[in-house]
Amino acid sequence: MEIIKQFELSKEYLESLRLGIEEENNAFIKDSLDGANVADVAAILDELSMDESIYVLRLLENQFSADILIELDEDTLSRVLKEMEAPEIASLIECMDSDDGADILNLLPLREREEVISYFTDRQKSEQILELLRYEEDTAGGIMAKEYIRANKNWNVVQTINEIRRQAENVDKIFSIYVVDNKQQLLGRVSLKRIVLASEQTKIEDIYEDEVISVPTHMDQEEVAEIMRRYDLETVPVVNVKNKLVGRITFDDILDIIREEAEEDIQAMTGISDTVDEYDSVIRLTKARLPWLLIGIVGGLLGAGFIGFFEEGLGKVTALAFFIPLITATGGNVGIQSSSLVVQSLASKSAFDDSIVKRFLKVLAVAVINGLILATFVFAVVVLFYQSDVAFGLVVAIALFSVVLLSSFMGTITPILLDKAGINPALASGPFITTANDLLGLAVYFLVAMSLLHI
Amino acid sequence: MEIIKQFELSKEYLESLRLGIEEENNAFIKDSLDGANVADVAAILDELSMDESIYVLRLLENQFSADILIELDEDTLSRVLKEMEAPEIASLIECMDSDDGADILNLLPLREREEVISYFTDRQKSEQILELLRYEEDTAGGIMAKEYIRANKNWNVVQTINEIRRQAENVDKIFSIYVVDNKQQLLGRVSLKRIVLASEQTKIEDIYEDEVISVPTHMDQEEVAEIMRRYDLETVPVVNVKNKLVGRITFDDILDIIREEAEEDIQAMTGISDTVDEYDSVIRLTKARLPWLLIGIVGGLLGAGFIGFFEEGLGKVTALAFFIPLITATGGNVGIQSSSLVVQSLASKSAFDDSIVKRFLKVLAVAVINGLILATFVFAVVVLFYQSDVAFGLVVAIALFSVVLLSSFMGTITPILLDKAGINPALASGPFITTANDLLGLAVYFLVAMSLLHI
Repeated sequence: MEIIKQFELSKEYLESLRLGIEEENNAFIKDSLDGANVADVAAILDELSMDESIYVLRLLENQFSADILIELDEDTLSRVLKEMEAPEIASLIECMDSDDGADILNLLPLREREEVISYFTDRQKSEQILELLRYEEDTAGGIMAKEYIRANKNWNVVQTINEIRRQAENVDKIFSIYVVDNKQQLLGRVSLKRIVLASEQTKIEDIYEDEVISVPTHMDQEEVAEIMRRYDLETVPVVNVKNKLVGRITFDDILDIIREEAEEDIQAMTGISDTVDEYDSVIRLTKARLPWLLIGIVGGLLGAGFIGFFEEGLGKVTALAFFIPLITATGGNVGIQSSSLVVQSLASKSAFDDSIVKRFLKVLAVAVINGLILATFVFAVVVLFYQSDVAFGLVVAIALFSVVLLSSFMGTITPILLDKAGINPALASGPFITTANDLLGLAVYFLVAMSLLHI
Repeated sequence: MEIIKQFELSKEYLESLRLGIEEENNAFIKDSLDGANVADVAAILDELSMDESIYVLRLLENQFSADILIELDEDTLSRVLKEMEAPEIASLIECMDSDDGADILNLLPLREREEVISYFTDRQKSEQILELLRYEEDTAGGIMAKEYIRANKNWNVVQTINEIRRQAENVDKIFSIYVVDNKQQLLGRVSLKRIVLASEQTKIEDIYEDEVISVPTHMDQEEVAEIMRRYDLETVPVVNVKNKLVGRITFDDILDIIREEAEEDIQAMTGISDTVDEYDSVIRLTKARLPWLLIGIVGGLLGAGFIGFFEEGLGKVTALAFFIPLITATGGNVGIQSSSLVVQSLASKSAFDDSIVKRFLKVLAVAVINGLILATFVFAVVVLFYQSDVAFGLVVAIALFSVVLLSSFMGTITPILLDKAGINPALASGPFITTANDLLGLAVYFLVAMSLLHI
C-alpha cells in the first residue's frame, strides 16, 4: 500500500523521465508511470515541454492518457490540444466521462470542434457529449455528467443489479441509484447500501427515498456547490424543466468549483484582473496587474489635482500634509473590512437575512464606536506628541471620524450594488474601493480643515 | 419529490413556528418539521431565541435533535449546550457519529465534559468518542470518524455483506469498504459496486485494490483537504504510525474545511482579526476590526512624524504634498497584488516549485515593466497637465518607479517569511503590508525629492 505516490515524483524522477524521452526509452517511461495516480502524472507533464508531454501521452494507453489529460493545467491542456490531430483527440475524448469530454471540446476552436466530433465512433458517448455542449458552461447542465445509474421504480433488486453490471464500465463511481418513473421523471434515490442489504425480489418502489434534493439544469454552479455543501451531498441529480432526470453532478466537480471561486474572489480583491499564478509568463503577469494599478494611478493623479486645489491653505498650514497618509490609509482599511464582511454574507445568503435598514444601522453602530475610539486616540497623540494646537487636533480627529463613517458606508453599499448589477461583489474589496476611499478621505479632510481653520 | 425544501422555510413559517412554541402547540411543531432537512431546521433554530430553540430540540426525536444540533451555528450551539443538562447532552451525543460527538464534547468546559461522559450508556460509542478526543482538533485524527466498514482480506463477499448489515445502523453512508489484515493494518479498499457485482463466494483478497491513498492521524486538516481534492477522493482512510486503520474522513468534512480556510484567508487579508460575520453583535464586530485599524493608525501617525521631518522642504515645494496619496496608494496596491500571488502559490505547493532566485527574478521583471509604464505615464501627466517643471516630474516618476520595485519585493518576501515562521501568510496581504508600504513609499518619495530638488 502506498501512503501517497506524489512523494515519489521528485525532481530527480523528472530528470530521468526527460532523459528517457530523449533516448526514446519507451519501456522505462511506461514502467515508471504504470500505476501512478493521474493527478501526479499530470503534474509532471505540466513541467515538461510540449513535445515531451505529447510524446508521453502518445505512448501510454488511451484510457490512461485521457485520464491524465483532464487533470492537466488549463494552459498545458490548451497547448497539447493544439498540437494533437483531430482523430487522436476524438479517441481520447471517447475514453472520458461525458462531462470531461464536453469540457475538452469547449476548449477547441469551433471549426476544430466539428472536426473532432466527426471522428467519434462511440454513438452513445458522442450523443451524450453533444447534449452537454448545449448547456452554459457554468450551470448545473454544464458541469453534470451523463454517467449515472437509473432504475425504474417497478424494477426489483436483481434487475437493478443487472443494470449496474451493464453500466459498470461507463459509471466509475456509484453512490446512489436514481429512481425514475416510466416517463423518466425523477422520483427519488436508493443507496447502493440498501441494494446490497435488500433481498433479490424486493421492489425498488418499496425501498427508495422520495425526499431527494435535485437541481435544475440552469442553476448556477456556485449555487449547486452551496447546496451540496449545505446538505452534505456526494452527488446531486440534475433535472430539466419537466423534472426529467438528465444527469448527475459529483462532489469532486464541486471541490474544484469552491476552490476556483475562492481564488477568483481573492484575485478580484487584490486587484489582479485575470486568473494568473506565479508560474505564468512575465508578460501575462504584467498584463493581469497593470489595469488596476493604472486605475489606482489615475485616482492618485485626481487626488493630486484635488489637493492642489487647496494649495493656498496647505502653504499656510504645512502640517496638514503630514496626516494625508493617515486619513487615506484608514479610509482604505475600513472600506476593505466592511466590504469583505458584506461579500462573505452575500456568498451565503439565507432566507432569514436581516433587512437592509437593520444591516446599515449595525454598520453605523460599529463605525461610530470604532471611529470615536480612533479619533480620540489620534486627537490625543496629535495634541500631546506633535504639539499641535487643539483646533488642528480637532481637524484631524473630526476628519478621521467622518472618514471611518463614510468608508464603512461605501464599503457596505458598493458590494451590494455590484451584486445587484450581476458583477462579482469581491471586486469592491479591491483597488476600486481603496481608490474611491482615498479621494473621499481627502475631500473630507480638506473640507473639515477649510471650515475649522478658516484657511 | 421536493426540489429544495429550504424555500419552504420562509419568514412566514418562522413566525408561525414562534406562535406554535408560545402556544405550546406541539403537534403543529412536530408535524411541520417532520421530514425537513436538518440543515434547514438548524438555520431556523439559529433565528429563534435560546428558550425557543431548546423547546423545539426537546420536543423532537433524539436522533433528529442530534442531527440538527451538529448543523447549528457555533454561537447558537454553545449557548444551547450551556442551557442543557449533562444527561440530556449525553443522550444526544450517543445519537451522533463519533466525530460529531467529539466535536460537541470539545465545546464543553473540561468539568462538564467529564460529567457528560459519565452519563454515556453506549459503551462502544463512548470508547470511540474518547479515543477521538485524544487527537488535536485540526489534524486528520481530529476530524476522522470511527464509523466505517472494515473487511478482513480472508473474508468472502457474503461475510462482508453480513458485516455491512451488522453496522448498517451505525454507518450511514458507505462508499468503500476498507480491507485489513489480521493485525488490522490497512491493505486497500473495495468499492461497494464491486461487492454488488461479485459472486457470493468471491474472496475479498481477490477483488480489492491495493493502491489506496491513506493519511496519518497527525496530518494537518488542510493537507488532508488538498489530498482529497487533488485525488478526487470521497473518503480517505486514516492510519496510525503502525499503519493500523483507525478511522475515515468523508468529503463533507472537507467541504467545510475548504470553505473555512478560504474565509480565514480573506479575513486575514482584509484586516479582520477574528472569525466574525455580519450577524455577530456590534461589540464582537467592533472588537474584530479595531486591532488592525489601530495598527494602521499608528502607521499613519509615524508617517506624519516622518513627513514632519521634511517640513522645511514641503514649505518650499508645496506640490510635494499633492502626490503623497499617489505614492502610498500605488505602493499598497502593488504590495497586495504581489503577496496575493505568493499566498496562492504557497497554498498549492508542488514538488516542482521554481527556486527562490528564479521567482525573484520574475517578480523583478514584472515590477520593472509595470514600474516603467506607470512612471512614464505619471511623468507625462505631471509635466503636461499639472504644468510642473521637468525636475519635479522626474521626482514623482522616479519615486513611483522605486516604490513599485520595493513594494513588489516586500509583497513577495513577507508571506514567504511568515509561512516559514508558521504564521498564516495571508496576513501579509492585509493592512500590515499596506501600512509598511505606506511608510516605505513616503521615505522613498521624500528622499528622492531631497536629493533631486536640493531642498
